[in-house]
Amino acid sequence: MHLEADRDALVECSQAVLRVVSPRATHPVLGGVRITAKDGTVELAATDLELFVAVTEEFATIEEGVCVLPGKLFGEVLRSLPSGRVSVQATGGEAVIQGGKARFSLTTLTVEDFPEFAEVADRSSATADAGELSRALRQVVRAASTDEVRPVLTGVLWSFAEGAVRLVATDSYRLALREVALKEGPSEGEMIVPGRALVELGRHLGASGVTEVTIRAGEAQAVCQVGRNRLVTRLIEGEFPKYRQLIPEGYANKLSVDRAEFGQAVQRVSVVAGTNTPVKVHLGDEVRLTAVEAGVGEADDVLEGATYEGEPMVVAFNPRFLGDGLDACEGEKAVLEVSSPTKPGVLRGEERYEFTYIAMPVRLSR
Amino acid sequence: MHLEADRDALVECSQAVLRVVSPRATHPVLGGVRITAKDGTVELAATDLELFVAVTEEFATIEEGVCVLPGKLFGEVLRSLPSGRVSVQATGGEAVIQGGKARFSLTTLTVEDFPEFAEVADRSSATADAGELSRALRQVVRAASTDEVRPVLTGVLWSFAEGAVRLVATDSYRLALREVALKEGPSEGEMIVPGRALVELGRHLGASGVTEVTIRAGEAQAVCQVGRNRLVTRLIEGEFPKYRQLIPEGYANKLSVDRAEFGQAVQRVSVVAGTNTPVKVHLGDEVRLTAVEAGVGEADDVLEGATYEGEPMVVAFNPRFLGDGLDACEGEKAVLEVSSPTKPGVLRGEERYEFTYIAMPVRLSR
Repeated sequence: MHLEADRDALVECSQAVLRVVSPRATHPVLGGVRITAKDGTVELAATDLELFVAVTEEFATIEEGVCVLPGKLFGEVLRSLPSGRVSVQATGGEAVIQGGKARFSLTTLTVEDFPEFAEVADRSSATADAGELSRALRQVVRAASTDEVRPVLTGVLWSFAEGAVRLVATDSYRLALREVALKEGPSEGEMIVPGRALVELGRHLGASGVTEVTIRAGEAQAVCQVGRNRLVTRLIEGEFPKYRQLIPEGYANKLSVDRAEFGQAVQRVSVVAGTNTPVKVHLGDEVRLTAVEAGVGEADDVLEGATYEGEPMVVAFNPRFLGDGLDACEGEKAVLEVSSPTKPGVLRGEERYEFTYIAMPVRLSR
Repeated sequence: MHLEADRDALVECSQAVLRVVSPRATHPVLGGVRITAKDGTVELAATDLELFVAVTEEFATIEEGVCVLPGKLFGEVLRSLPSGRVSVQATGGEAVIQGGKARFSLTTLTVEDFPEFAEVADRSSATADAGELSRALRQVVRAASTDEVRPVLTGVLWSFAEGAVRLVATDSYRLALREVALKEGPSEGEMIVPGRALVELGRHLGASGVTEVTIRAGEAQAVCQVGRNRLVTRLIEGEFPKYRQLIPEGYANKLSVDRAEFGQAVQRVSVVAGTNTPVKVHLGDEVRLTAVEAGVGEADDVLEGATYEGEPMVVAFNPRFLGDGLDACEGEKAVLEVSSPTKPGVLRGEERYEFTYIAMPVRLSR
């Protein structure tokens, strides 16, 4: 294997795959980057056994072949080289990386040990706009759980319907839901994709020049093709929570407020609040936020320019969940709808109906 | 106690003192900031019992007095407030902080518990240019040890002589020495100042508008006055290593090289080298750096534009110590002087004689 490439371009490719490599890989080869030179293109690939990422670029392939290099070290070596032409040449158990007057010789890993990713037998295939899916993922993925105790909650439900996919995530304290139009797609079907894989997918969608993403789902895996980059992720088995019953039917009371200002006020009063201390939203002619932490102090802030229609009430939320929701909504104004202090509150951007964020209120003892 | 101040200015003051506050303070009051309003000025002070820092600013003092607030929380509350006027008013066991429409009420700490710092009975006093001392500290302090096993090595020796002070730090693997001219100062005397206190002093010296620093030393403490800011540090007792014998008398062999390029090459080859793996400097007609890490790989780089006068030899250094030294030297070109592969190497900026950096070579088994 012998390739020549621009140092900066190769660094960019290596960084995209190295994000998958765990610093605590259980087996050395899982800390590796596989480099395949073939037909004038070079593919860099890495996997943690749950997610496989391959980035392909047109680099000069002087000799076709494949090798696996310790990923972190490979990335550091590339970054240390001066800008310009670099060459990577693997023979026997050694790879030589050269750039400028510097020359590195690294011990390679065994190619055969690198996990194979079988092609997915298509169950269904969908195509979406890259920018739109990227925004949707940013809005939804944060509501997924990071606690592996209930694996199904660490995933995002993809629920396909005619011409669209509904993305849903919930950690049982809050729920985010977003509709994304599809250019092509199945008329029905569901899959649960790990949140972590979608964070990574979001990064690839953000790359310049990418306009479209194609997702092909099999029984246990899904393949996302983003330009020439390919992500293969396992799917999560299990039954996703019946989220439809969580979405309130009607909203008796409605707060309309500048989204940034609401977010800042939440951050401000939560300065005194511990992780599990609720922030109270006082809804009425004047809209105020308050928080009290025993032995520490109190905070009180007024939301300027807020409009509230409904009966006066006090609803308490976990400040992190409220802040997350406000950040996820888009647009200048946010709308918070509540029916009672014990029922879920619904957040969305004003006149933006594709995204809904639902937060469970904290029950107050008094 | 009641003060009014510009939010941004008060944030700046609080950050300067909060750096001293330990997040793991053994007693709550050591996590506190003491606020004293008097005669139209406000002093913020904090201490970790080894270092005391007081920052004074002209703010409106509506009511004179003193209070102690939980430092970290106070800083966060201030940062959370919008720009503009803020007020801090302490009465009883409570302080009210207001800014914009936000209002915080924090539980205060007991003023009497805040440690007193007695005035130093002067043994000697010195005045230096703030910029020059700041540069000197940046060069020297990094060579001090961070290992508390030998406390004396965690300090920097201040050795006063006619019109100047010599700053010396060593962790026994390398040594940094810098002469600083004094505007006024004692003709003799020595003290050992904790490196950590000097890092903090350096930050205050870097503040805009400060041109001069005065240091008054007592038996066990030293007071540094930087503009209106005051730092009181304990001094380290013990005998500083006899460093003079470490400084080589003459230099038979001399490398002159672009300082930035040398530094980059050290970083580059040390990518493959573990923390304790030496980097070999091959001195001869061509000057090369190499490093070998068993089972990982090798690195080889050529120093372009290097001039070496002397007999060919290979000297090995810890890459971190070599890199630190190159960074500490000033000027475009660096000079490395060696007498043999087992004797200390001397680094300095070309034609800059006020700073000397000495690194012990690593003895190679082959």
